[in-house]
Amino acid sequence: MSKKLKIIPLGGMGEIGKNMTVLEYDGEMLVIDCGSSFPDESMPGIELVIPDFTYLLENRDRIKAVLITHGHEDHIGALPFLLKQVDVPVYGTAFAVALIRHKCEELGIKNANLITISPRDRIEAGCFRIEFIKTGHSIAGAVALAISTPAGTVIHTGDFKIDLTPMDGEPIDINRLAYYGSKGVFALLSDSTNVERPGFTPSELEIEETFERCFDGAKGRVIVATFASNIYRIQQIANVAVRHDRFVCFQGRSMEQIVRIAQKLGYLSIPEDRILSLEAIRNYPDSRICVMTTGSQGEPMSGLFRMAASTHKLTVGAGDTVVISASAIPGNERGVSKVIDALCEKGCDVIYDQMADVHVSGHACREELKLMLSIIKPRFFIPVHGEYRHLLLHARLAEEMGIDPEHIFRLHCGDVLELGTKHGRIHGSVPSGSVMVDGLGDMNDVVIKDRILLSEEGILIAVLTLNASDGRLLCDPQIVSRGFVYMRTSDDLIARACDVLKKEALSFENADRSSYPEIKNTVKSRLRSFLRSETHRNPMVLTIIQEVDPDGSENR
Amino acid sequence: MSKKLKIIPLGGMGEIGKNMTVLEYDGEMLVIDCGSSFPDESMPGIELVIPDFTYLLENRDRIKAVLITHGHEDHIGALPFLLKQVDVPVYGTAFAVALIRHKCEELGIKNANLITISPRDRIEAGCFRIEFIKTGHSIAGAVALAISTPAGTVIHTGDFKIDLTPMDGEPIDINRLAYYGSKGVFALLSDSTNVERPGFTPSELEIEETFERCFDGAKGRVIVATFASNIYRIQQIANVAVRHDRFVCFQGRSMEQIVRIAQKLGYLSIPEDRILSLEAIRNYPDSRICVMTTGSQGEPMSGLFRMAASTHKLTVGAGDTVVISASAIPGNERGVSKVIDALCEKGCDVIYDQMADVHVSGHACREELKLMLSIIKPRFFIPVHGEYRHLLLHARLAEEMGIDPEHIFRLHCGDVLELGTKHGRIHGSVPSGSVMVDGLGDMNDVVIKDRILLSEEGILIAVLTLNASDGRLLCDPQIVSRGFVYMRTSDDLIARACDVLKKEALSFENADRSSYPEIKNTVKSRLRSFLRSETHRNPMVLTIIQEVDPDGSENR
Repeated sequence: MSKKLKIIPLGGMGEIGKNMTVLEYDGEMLVIDCGSSFPDESMPGIELVIPDFTYLLENRDRIKAVLITHGHEDHIGALPFLLKQVDVPVYGTAFAVALIRHKCEELGIKNANLITISPRDRIEAGCFRIEFIKTGHSIAGAVALAISTPAGTVIHTGDFKIDLTPMDGEPIDINRLAYYGSKGVFALLSDSTNVERPGFTPSELEIEETFERCFDGAKGRVIVATFASNIYRIQQIANVAVRHDRFVCFQGRSMEQIVRIAQKLGYLSIPEDRILSLEAIRNYPDSRICVMTTGSQGEPMSGLFRMAASTHKLTVGAGDTVVISASAIPGNERGVSKVIDALCEKGCDVIYDQMADVHVSGHACREELKLMLSIIKPRFFIPVHGEYRHLLLHARLAEEMGIDPEHIFRLHCGDVLELGTKHGRIHGSVPSGSVMVDGLGDMNDVVIKDRILLSEEGILIAVLTLNASDGRLLCDPQIVSRGFVYMRTSDDLIARACDVLKKEALSFENADRSSYPEIKNTVKSRLRSFLRSETHRNPMVLTIIQEVDPDGSENR
Repeated sequence: MSKKLKIIPLGGMGEIGKNMTVLEYDGEMLVIDCGSSFPDESMPGIELVIPDFTYLLENRDRIKAVLITHGHEDHIGALPFLLKQVDVPVYGTAFAVALIRHKCEELGIKNANLITISPRDRIEAGCFRIEFIKTGHSIAGAVALAISTPAGTVIHTGDFKIDLTPMDGEPIDINRLAYYGSKGVFALLSDSTNVERPGFTPSELEIEETFERCFDGAKGRVIVATFASNIYRIQQIANVAVRHDRFVCFQGRSMEQIVRIAQKLGYLSIPEDRILSLEAIRNYPDSRICVMTTGSQGEPMSGLFRMAASTHKLTVGAGDTVVISASAIPGNERGVSKVIDALCEKGCDVIYDQMADVHVSGHACREELKLMLSIIKPRFFIPVHGEYRHLLLHARLAEEMGIDPEHIFRLHCGDVLELGTKHGRIHGSVPSGSVMVDGLGDMNDVVIKDRILLSEEGILIAVLTLNASDGRLLCDPQIVSRGFVYMRTSDDLIARACDVLKKEALSFENADRSSYPEIKNTVKSRLRSFLRSETHRNPMVLTIIQEVDPDGSENR
């Protein structure tokens, strides 16, 4: 059997978030990106979701390199958790590497083998040769990957858009992509995020005019919330601010950190004497101030959220212009809406995406996706980075562009795609899924299910203390509840529930010990029925039986 | 002091949902709408949110009538809860009254005094004379109110859009609005929902062409999810289906109920022999079938959700065309997205609002709002039905239209607006807010806060049984947890936590009883520290002390 190239997504298929793909040839493996995603409402108390690394850990010695396309959380967020367990070189552009290094330091990971590359650099890793190709995205230093394998060349676009007037002056390297396209590309993996949107994503430059107008019209401070990692946006806003003779002040932990890193690396260029601390802005009139802050998604601990909630040192109100330079990511709409409302209530003039062009996407729309397909003309096509419907629409688009439908693969996480010279097929799968991280450890599904039950119905705990020799109650049962009924006004209900318990507990008297579990279940079920009939609610019910030795001896 | 008209919103200000406004003159009160809203993620386990009725209950004898503008939940959903406590006539058009009657029956409320009116009907209630004026909205039978009071005429638009080619053939009664506008209107209360959107909301008719294309292209069944109450949409889809020689089948509890009511009242006109039951559609080829179902918001128990989850009797898959004829209401985006994805995975051809014009809003956009202001030319203007930012934008729009800014009032729920002949002012407030309904009763804030804590961190319960005479432990402490750690793999952690408990419980020995609460607090806090240091999590900790009489006597 001839050797085949395997492509195994461990994240980013059927979801926007935690992107990760494995390339495998003849036992050698490459990992592309290692992202995390944010928990949704079905995961209360969870901080982060990362891919299941089982397959990588089982094959850790075969991993030749991790390639990072850019420094967004959904591409690097899980990397420290992998590097904790696997020692492997990681390649990325300077900004991505700086962000990864910062993340590793925060999590106490030393000696990570991080290697900075530049666009057009080439590296070797096992049987793979990789060239990094400049693209455009809503973060500095985004690259696509051209990976030469014995089976042929694989192009992975990473996240991209085709911005021909980007803030850094260097558009996407179409010529290099065209070079590979002309030579012949075996497989293309391309970003599907915006496949529902027609046309072209506007250039970052297009929104500068809106910002000019916002600043022109502002009498007091201008406060702009945007993604901390969108250095281009920050540069653009700083440019407008400086042109309007304003000083800039950065607020929010990640904003301050990332700006520091970006200034140091030269990705961001703002005159140092134009940057003020929060304390220093008091020395200038409001009309000279521009604050850039986190919180464009309404995140509870962010700068803008705290300003809106009056828990930030900066007091905002009438006279201030607040620009939210972002779109709400699905799931965050209500949070963003609440922040806008609170700022309006305070008298701020709030400008957001429904009112003005204060944001452009970082992802390619349909015409750009068609351009990519048309340049690369791959034999095999695998849409990546998208909910299932995005992958489907991207697959259809590729078909319209003339790619053989039998050469287009819509994968699920964990699928093992085997590509031969002429044919490909999904051949089995490897473990994959979402690992929930909370505190320092992983989180079990059962625990999460319990949390959801607890949040919907609350809990009631009943304690029965029995004489171990004859099963008689030794004292009154106790009932405690949380999230069920308001205990202070429910004395009567609880007293009657205790009566139910006392009556049911009679069954323990002189019963055979082996029947205790059954009796306990009956007690529990009677108590549940009582509560349901009294309150029409179904709390989680725990019955705890303490058995005490009749002679009162202790067991220490 | 001259008598003044009071306008008191009890809902719908600073929120989209649970609309309710009180008009008051010389001790007589009118209530306009009585809506409910859906709980958000901060209210786990809650079924419904209704306005605080305190002010109405305190003044129940002064309420002359409840006027209903239309039968959407955010205008009638709380009415049964009010009618349970207050006996007052309720006026609405036939469809709204039918929906209210149905709701009252389900909640066991008999003898509700529901009075059906038609557009242009006039009624009297105390010192108020009311005329009902036809408008257009995404439900049949929507009306605006022209309320003549001794202070002057008040116009309340209800929810409206200006659809000049509506499905029922009768556009909004601009002439009647103009009649009042020409006579002079004292105050206008107008719908602010869509004030962020420029232009005009398209006519319902505009999307018919899209449906024609969907049906033209469909080879198998066409399944359309839409709002059950949008009878116009249902009529339109049924028309297209019948033209394509298909039978229609209604699925989902509210869809079946509302269609039955609407057919009976003549709001919906579909030939009976064109309507099939779920069982009967098996007798026809898929190409002859159109299913209309609930679930356009991805609601967990809805028809479409169950089809997507394979828990519906109707098995959907390749060949089926699914049209989601709605936009996701903020907060529902993720749910809708999951349903679309699941349907795509099953092979259905899914058409939704980002891909095609399959939905139009029921609310007026900016140009329509301007038209309303321009026709009515009110002395005082109060934007209603909106988040705070919508009220603000609508107030600014009114100012641009020439209304004196001092005559424009942005109110909060509970504000008492007093309008004199020339001036108005907010003069105090009445109790207002959200009452959460779960099971059969109201829900306390403390309970909700506990539920959120439980969902984020889980709970751990420690039980200590002490000898009542000397405070010594009578048996091993027991620890049970839910939503904290996975109990089955946490034996070691729990055993060590028990050791902590045992050690701390020594303090009870021979301690003075008065110091028990303090010792209990110390035990709890040591246990919490232990858990935090071991797991980096902070579960809710409950310690329950059982005291047993040393001679083992019972207390029954």
